[in-house]
Amino acid sequence: MMSETQPLPDAAPICRYPTPTPTTLDGLPADVRQRILEVQEKAGFVPNVFLALARRPEEFRAFLAYHDALLLRESGLSKGEKEMIIVATSGVNRCLYCVVAHGAILRVYEKAPLLADQIAVNHRKADITPRQQAMLDFALKVCLRADEVGEADYTALHAQGFDNEDIWDITSITALFGLSNRLANAISLRPNPEFYLLGRLPRAPKA
Amino acid sequence: MMSETQPLPDAAPICRYPTPTPTTLDGLPADVRQRILEVQEKAGFVPNVFLALARRPEEFRAFLAYHDALLLRESGLSKGEKEMIIVATSGVNRCLYCVVAHGAILRVYEKAPLLADQIAVNHRKADITPRQQAMLDFALKVCLRADEVGEADYTALHAQGFDNEDIWDITSITALFGLSNRLANAISLRPNPEFYLLGRLPRAPKA
Amino acid sequence: MMSETQPLPDAAPICRYPTPTPTTLDGLPADVRQRILEVQEKAGFVPNVFLALARRPEEFRAFLAYHDALLLRESGLSKGEKEMIIVATSGVNRCLYCVVAHGAILRVYEKAPLLADQIAVNHRKADITPRQQAMLDFALKVCLRADEVGEADYTALHAQGFDNEDIWDITSITALFGLSNRLANAISLRPNPEFYLLGRLPRAPKA
Amino acid sequence: MMSETQPLPDAAPICRYPTPTPTTLDGLPADVRQRILEVQEKAGFVPNVFLALARRPEEFRAFLAYHDALLLRESGLSKGEKEMIIVATSGVNRCLYCVVAHGAILRVYEKAPLLADQIAVNHRKADITPRQQAMLDFALKVCLRADEVGEADYTALHAQGFDNEDIWDITSITALFGLSNRLANAISLRPNPEFYLLGRLPRAPKA
Amino acid sequence: MMSETQPLPDAAPICRYPTPTPTTLDGLPADVRQRILEVQEKAGFVPNVFLALARRPEEFRAFLAYHDALLLRESGLSKGEKEMIIVATSGVNRCLYCVVAHGAILRVYEKAPLLADQIAVNHRKADITPRQQAMLDFALKVCLRADEVGEADYTALHAQGFDNEDIWDITSITALFGLSNRLANAISLRPNPEFYLLGRLPRAPKA
Amino acid sequence: MMSETQPLPDAAPICRYPTPTPTTLDGLPADVRQRILEVQEKAGFVPNVFLALARRPEEFRAFLAYHDALLLRESGLSKGEKEMIIVATSGVNRCLYCVVAHGAILRVYEKAPLLADQIAVNHRKADITPRQQAMLDFALKVCLRADEVGEADYTALHAQGFDNEDIWDITSITALFGLSNRLANAISLRPNPEFYLLGRLPRAPKA
Repeated sequence: MMSETQPLPDAAPICRYPTPTPTTLDGLPADVRQRILEVQEKAGFVPNVFLALARRPEEFRAFLAYHDALLLRESGLSKGEKEMIIVATSGVNRCLYCVVAHGAILRVYEKAPLLADQIAVNHRKADITPRQQAMLDFALKVCLRADEVGEADYTALHAQGFDNEDIWDITSITALFGLSNRLANAISLRPNPEFYLLGRLPRAPKA
Repeated sequence: MMSETQPLPDAAPICRYPTPTPTTLDGLPADVRQRILEVQEKAGFVPNVFLALARRPEEFRAFLAYHDALLLRESGLSKGEKEMIIVATSGVNRCLYCVVAHGAILRVYEKAPLLADQIAVNHRKADITPRQQAMLDFALKVCLRADEVGEADYTALHAQGFDNEDIWDITSITALFGLSNRLANAISLRPNPEFYLLGRLPRAPKA
Repeated sequence: MMSETQPLPDAAPICRYPTPTPTTLDGLPADVRQRILEVQEKAGFVPNVFLALARRPEEFRAFLAYHDALLLRESGLSKGEKEMIIVATSGVNRCLYCVVAHGAILRVYEKAPLLADQIAVNHRKADITPRQQAMLDFALKVCLRADEVGEADYTALHAQGFDNEDIWDITSITALFGLSNRLANAISLRPNPEFYLLGRLPRAPKA
Repeated sequence: MMSETQPLPDAAPICRYPTPTPTTLDGLPADVRQRILEVQEKAGFVPNVFLALARRPEEFRAFLAYHDALLLRESGLSKGEKEMIIVATSGVNRCLYCVVAHGAILRVYEKAPLLADQIAVNHRKADITPRQQAMLDFALKVCLRADEVGEADYTALHAQGFDNEDIWDITSITALFGLSNRLANAISLRPNPEFYLLGRLPRAPKA
Repeated sequence: MMSETQPLPDAAPICRYPTPTPTTLDGLPADVRQRILEVQEKAGFVPNVFLALARRPEEFRAFLAYHDALLLRESGLSKGEKEMIIVATSGVNRCLYCVVAHGAILRVYEKAPLLADQIAVNHRKADITPRQQAMLDFALKVCLRADEVGEADYTALHAQGFDNEDIWDITSITALFGLSNRLANAISLRPNPEFYLLGRLPRAPKA
Repeated sequence: MMSETQPLPDAAPICRYPTPTPTTLDGLPADVRQRILEVQEKAGFVPNVFLALARRPEEFRAFLAYHDALLLRESGLSKGEKEMIIVATSGVNRCLYCVVAHGAILRVYEKAPLLADQIAVNHRKADITPRQQAMLDFALKVCLRADEVGEADYTALHAQGFDNEDIWDITSITALFGLSNRLANAISLRPNPEFYLLGRLPRAPKA
């Protein structure tokens, strides 16, 4: 992890609201605490969204249950493609937390250090397949103009090999992160500094 | 209920996806089935969103957990005010299901048969208090331009007596129903016919 | 009529401007007064737009002359279809008066208690024919982006069986109610409470 | 008039619809014909909008009655100011007919050969008074976002000396020409060539 | 020139910034002064943009070098077509200086006194060829939504006979005048009065 | 430089147009070639925009002359602040090339590895001063709504200590990169892979 070399830019709070600190999770319900410790072990740090949501354990559990239902689900979409959707829609929603955090995850999943920046800025210019372009075109329509979605959109995705369950996945992932984009923007949630560099460097060869 | 007098306009499916029918809930997990039976007993019919989400029990549970966490929570917002937020934001998102279903709930909660139409069309013309106007102004900003939310928005709400927990509630309710607006629009979820008339008539005097 | 059961929510004035009251129409020119009495006899109440326009008799006469020329005219559009146009465009213009008042008229004409809400919120989700969908697509384009209307729009409507006189009708109805939407919004014209429920209930069988 | 020096660029029809020609007005009702002859005598030519509307005499009469009620009315707005409203709103509605025809009238009324182009392109850069700037700011809000008009807008206009009747005038002129902008754009109504140059040249001194 | 008959409307400064006056160019670098004198000799007056840019000689030289590179270049676009692009995009950018100044140049080049007003207000209604319509459609897309330009846009232009160098020209002219539109609007640059009438009158026959 | 570890993702051309390759600059005019060699020596690679513009040497020279005039100029804005403007406006213009290339330069100038991502996604959430926030607010207004810039904008910037020359700089930098954003998007200019990582890592201590 980068924590030695990438110090926190300042001691700014992680959002507008008081949150538990990673080192004092004691007041939290056991399952919430457990979930945070698990992600910390896996990532090497506690992503700030976990701390912000932990203020309200029921919302914490509900959000993560929805998140897991969609992102851990077997699907016609790969794990990397699901992250592409999150990064593209968070980009047009101008959500710093989600672009930076899920950009990192996308780089790691796809082993593609340039991809997240391309998709966050303008997915039309990204190094992705036509099928993935169609997926992101649809995601952005759900994000920005869901009221106009109709038969022609389903047809276009079917032509790229997506079935209706895949379309439900694209829709729901877009919708769930539209939720977190709005919350993160309204509470000014800061991305952990570690995310910015994650997945940008080649892995060191194992000893 | 209106079911005798208000027949289904046609045998149109409730959305683009196959769903369990209210009369054959047997294939569903017990908790999902139980929750559907409860709402049916309370409302007199099964709101279509329950059937659509029941296709995917994990998402059903997560959505309802989030819903309950926000809507059943003790809050500086009344239950009616929470529904105002849903109706106003679903109006600008042009989501038929949520405008009609939550419009009905709003009418019932507030015992105000005209209020839902006012708020769905243009909240500035609704018979609500200045505090509620400010609440809906903020909700629409979170809905449409969350990236621009900042200090001045918090200050304006504080001036109306909302505290930061109330603001979290307004934000999160807006965000959660932005999720369901996008899903409902993309799958063309139809409101149950019963919702359209609910709360519009004075209650018959008890015998 | 609903007046017994649906009391005026408050004694709020019907708009920002002083208007004649239905019970004291005496100061008005005879033709204006006559027209108001006719609509009162037919509807059971005086729609507020008549009182607001009566402040300026010449504008009252001109608006109603335009209204009658378009809405009473024999046309390839049915009376219900003309009201669909008014409801759909008033919905995107967020005009409470016209959505509620013409929504009522649409329900009555089409004997379709759910239709007005569907069209006001999102016509793409309404129970209407493909020909009516095309009609409303065009009406919304005239409403929002008339500068982009061109040959292709005429061709699309011809393909649905509309001729050029029908297209003139769609255009002009959209344009006339764009006028009244702007006026009603700017003066905060309130719909009569009676409109909200009109056409939502099955008619009682005649004795 | 410019007709000798400014030939019609081509024999293009004046709009998408067949119209009476200025030289053969015989089929028209007497009052419509009379009105057209009057304007022809005054202007030296028949403005194309008269011919287009004459296809439907009732709409012709209604439009002109509304037009006269607003534009000939004694008002806190000068005749030139009324034309400023028409030019500014027709500019943002991108209506060629109204920008060119009413631009000409504005130049003539105000004896200001540059003013119409300034207002049509960007009223903020026009040589007008702060009071007129406020008037046009409000007109553009009614034109583009009438649903957001509220108390603060009235207050701002009162501060510039406008009373509520003036505000009704600004609103209604904006709304009426929003009607004609939509119709003219949808039928591709061409401005008469004569309008383009009218009021741009100093008048020849009288002999 | 019109200067005798078209006096400056007032002694308003030409923009928000102090500029050299046409009669006292002495403080300017020799090349800048020379360029200004050349355009004055050709046009009969000094276009205000030259004086505004002369405040900063390096930017003056760079802008004019870019301008000359694109506008004097041999191209698949005629000189008049290049001016059409400038007028159409300056119209949607609402830049008074560029609409008026380049509208004048367009009228002169094309000997078409009505064309500039048509293109500035709504190019879809202008008397131009389908090829020129396609050119302006593309220019407006580059102006307003360049991030969405893609393969289909190139194909549409190729179908009208434009090659890739022509497309580069359309793009770059749009982009360069997008620059000057922004600068002119931000500094409130006034068009010279002479431009408004230029090219509107038939040339006097030579003696 | 990263070139050993960060291979080009594929042999994709750098844009839609054929360009000189960095290794064969021979056909280029001497000054263009010289400028390219200089930047290559300084950066360690040739930024692709140099190769794309070199197709047209006159435009290459003009763009770089404008660039240098604004970016090398002594100013009330620091070099880092000038890059902030470029990154923020390129973000809203969704220009991949400029966000990535100037994001790198901003990181290097400010020695702030997180800053470019913050500003590109949502400058309101960036770790910058209130003065810099005001600067970027104005830059985005020039970028998106220059026609609405007026006195109040100048006043707000003066209150933050900017003088009129600084405002000219903000405006002109915004305008110039609006030009390059449009060109880069229309020709699909790819950022060099080297830019993505530049300035993200702490510098190795000197031996």
